[in-house]
Amino acid sequence: MQSSFSSTNSIIAMEIESATQEKAGPLALAWDWVKTLPLNFKNIAVNLVRTTKKLGQDDPRRVMHSLKVGLALTLVSLLYYWRPLYNGFGVSGMWAVLTVVVVFEFTVGATLSKGLNRACATLSAGALGCGAHHLARLFGAKGEPIVLGLLVFLLAAASSFTRFIPRIKARYDYGVLIFILTFSLVSVTGYRVDKILELANERLTTIGIGGATCIIVSICVCPVWAGEDLHKLVASNIEKLASYLEGFGGEYFPDPEDHEGNIMASKGDKALLQGYKSVLNSKNTEESLANFARWEPGHGRFHFRHPWKQYLKIGVLARQCAYRIDALNGYINSDLQAAMEFRNKIRKPSKKMCSEASKALKALALSIKTMTDPSAAKSHVENSRTAIDELELVLKAVSLENADLLAIIPIASVASILTEITKCVENIYESIHELSCLAEFKSASVESTVSPEKPQAQVLVLHCGSIKPVLDGHNDHVIITVHVTNEEYSLQTEFSQPPKPGQS
Amino acid sequence: MQSSFSSTNSIIAMEIESATQEKAGPLALAWDWVKTLPLNFKNIAVNLVRTTKKLGQDDPRRVMHSLKVGLALTLVSLLYYWRPLYNGFGVSGMWAVLTVVVVFEFTVGATLSKGLNRACATLSAGALGCGAHHLARLFGAKGEPIVLGLLVFLLAAASSFTRFIPRIKARYDYGVLIFILTFSLVSVTGYRVDKILELANERLTTIGIGGATCIIVSICVCPVWAGEDLHKLVASNIEKLASYLEGFGGEYFPDPEDHEGNIMASKGDKALLQGYKSVLNSKNTEESLANFARWEPGHGRFHFRHPWKQYLKIGVLARQCAYRIDALNGYINSDLQAAMEFRNKIRKPSKKMCSEASKALKALALSIKTMTDPSAAKSHVENSRTAIDELELVLKAVSLENADLLAIIPIASVASILTEITKCVENIYESIHELSCLAEFKSASVESTVSPEKPQAQVLVLHCGSIKPVLDGHNDHVIITVHVTNEEYSLQTEFSQPPKPGQS
Repeated sequence: MQSSFSSTNSIIAMEIESATQEKAGPLALAWDWVKTLPLNFKNIAVNLVRTTKKLGQDDPRRVMHSLKVGLALTLVSLLYYWRPLYNGFGVSGMWAVLTVVVVFEFTVGATLSKGLNRACATLSAGALGCGAHHLARLFGAKGEPIVLGLLVFLLAAASSFTRFIPRIKARYDYGVLIFILTFSLVSVTGYRVDKILELANERLTTIGIGGATCIIVSICVCPVWAGEDLHKLVASNIEKLASYLEGFGGEYFPDPEDHEGNIMASKGDKALLQGYKSVLNSKNTEESLANFARWEPGHGRFHFRHPWKQYLKIGVLARQCAYRIDALNGYINSDLQAAMEFRNKIRKPSKKMCSEASKALKALALSIKTMTDPSAAKSHVENSRTAIDELELVLKAVSLENADLLAIIPIASVASILTEITKCVENIYESIHELSCLAEFKSASVESTVSPEKPQAQVLVLHCGSIKPVLDGHNDHVIITVHVTNEEYSLQTEFSQPPKPGQS
Repeated sequence: MQSSFSSTNSIIAMEIESATQEKAGPLALAWDWVKTLPLNFKNIAVNLVRTTKKLGQDDPRRVMHSLKVGLALTLVSLLYYWRPLYNGFGVSGMWAVLTVVVVFEFTVGATLSKGLNRACATLSAGALGCGAHHLARLFGAKGEPIVLGLLVFLLAAASSFTRFIPRIKARYDYGVLIFILTFSLVSVTGYRVDKILELANERLTTIGIGGATCIIVSICVCPVWAGEDLHKLVASNIEKLASYLEGFGGEYFPDPEDHEGNIMASKGDKALLQGYKSVLNSKNTEESLANFARWEPGHGRFHFRHPWKQYLKIGVLARQCAYRIDALNGYINSDLQAAMEFRNKIRKPSKKMCSEASKALKALALSIKTMTDPSAAKSHVENSRTAIDELELVLKAVSLENADLLAIIPIASVASILTEITKCVENIYESIHELSCLAEFKSASVESTVSPEKPQAQVLVLHCGSIKPVLDGHNDHVIITVHVTNEEYSLQTEFSQPPKPGQS
């Protein structure tokens, strides 16, 4: 227990330390501060350089993004620097600069979302503002500011309230903000400016120029697509879960003969066993990426109406799996020598469950990455299901006469949670299968679904086909004939044990 | 398994339905659309009214916030409407409107953070912009736009990159944005405007007026404090965990004699059993509230440097507990009739573990809410620890000769996960205790720590004191004398069974 919270505890310890540091006199403290100033500056500078380097190395697109912002800003500055353009727009060019700074975002989707939100909001609020201005004029010189003030108050209050509606908050928050802004500016400044339509026109044009510059630079210069990021994030999250399960199998059920080596290896695996933690809190990132992805035009392998929502569903299931894994992780530091007999008995099916679930997740992640049918994972899902049955058989056969139930329970719980995880993996498989149908993933070739190294463990289940195992009594190999309804072909594979019929 | 994913499945089903809806001709579709138009409008209007009403009822502060935005905007509009002010500021009044719209946020902390970020960034970038302008002048008429363009490019690129640094992103993101904006505006527009200092001065003043209006309205009219929200959120999250555990005990270990009644009651509890789900994804909300809370001045029961960070630590532990609960939740729909004998044996300690952990969490939530010492929870934490020992004793005594291990395992896993949850609760207790020290919660009075309804089950452990159970051999009541080092007093309580010494 303690060890699983060690990171939290160390933070807590630091906190306490800083809270309880001795209270010296203010002069002594100031002198200390002056003394350490050059060192502090050096430290800050070194840290800054290191952070910057790391940020750039982690994702070089960040550097590119910064340069793109600079480029877009310099481009709209031409509205000022270039005489013919300045003569056309005058000081309104400022709005182009303002638009670029606030609209330019990291991903194309976010930039498009903000740009289009801004454009629509400016147009509608501008028109409404002009209308309000003319309406207020009807009330004479005394009534005009009062009516304008009232209208601004009402519209601002109503619009602010709509920002609490979750759907609007998620997609049109910026638009509503700009709507309030533009309406207030147009109706209020219109009170003192006579040529209000001309002013509105100039602003709208320059905002359009700014927005267009952002969108063009964002799409044409090394574009960063939110959709692609979401796609990769979901795949990498599933991979992290797979890595955990792979590491856990070796860690919790070490081979008795290979104990030394495994402990050595497991130290290197510790990092693998932490990766899943970032999956636990991936919800917000996934949701905002999905929101931005909707705005993006078709790009690369993604068409315009790619089923981004389905990624969120996969994300929910992946997190559910990650929660189970977090529960599992609580057992990893327990005494590995306890109840050795029982542990040895369930080691084989449990390890198989781990490794097959891990392989299934890896195949699923690969299927997302390559955008191919997830049929390669099906066999592993089947195998993990078989492993559950094997575990049940072993558990039924186990003799508990001299067993220490207290020592058995943690191990039994691990097996039970692993079973739950296997079921989660099955759900993830189903949802990725659905994604592959919705997004029309290309079907994996027959060669790739039967991996060459383990032909005897593979069960090929084609979603549209039916499986009829033909039992051959003379040896325990099985010949499967798959009849596919769309394309007629049959496939023969040998199995070392009878597979369960697919539950697709 | 299926039932725990039923909500996901229903969403998936809806998705499929919409994806596979029959493809009619475009004319027929258009006619359908026209036919349903009035109905659709009515539905949308009804939904809108319902959503609005619900949003307002859920949190009336939202309505207040909307009115506050309207008020602040109307106030700064006076810069235009009121002749003396307009003569002073002219069109620059626009910047006040702009500032109010973008700076005014729901909580005081967010408004302060944005306002102060904007003020600092505008000041520094304005000064830098003027400097850049004068520097560029040195390069003559031809060189000036080139130097200015280069400077804008470099500064915008560098500043954009700093927005990727997590620490800056969390706290100063808006400031950096405004920094880029102001620097670009001042240096670029300065190219065409002669009285740049005057312009900068006017803008700065109006931005200051706008920001000040926001902050004053935000603080003075029904303030919404981010810190208080964080405080309440953490307490309510812990309460949700407590409700789950309370409900789970009755649901999974029903009393044999009270079976019918329990099933009836459990249907009403189903909602209680879902509450914990919002805890799973509370990280982002907590972190942003904590970031805003740092900017807030002392208010109500919170002083300026309230240990907001500690709430994040409690949040981490609460989520850890919620993950375990989610794993536990996977077992709730399993067959309640299986392995009745074994279930009955461990029912008592398991239920006690549930109820004591739940009581401890409730007491902890109450301690946060009332900002009192969490000592009232200590006894429940102790009791839950005792329940673990009792469970161990029961498990040691259980005879497994004719037991069906397969049926036992889920129940044993539930007990094991409950044990883990109890340990989580202990950690939560520790971290809240730490919070109570850091934030100097008032110590609970002796009366309130020993709840009147169950005096025999209470163990009072005072953090600064020591406990010496004096065993009375003639009956199994225990007399405890507590010697408190700071304030000398002693307390006698009778116990029905010997308590374990406190592990504080």
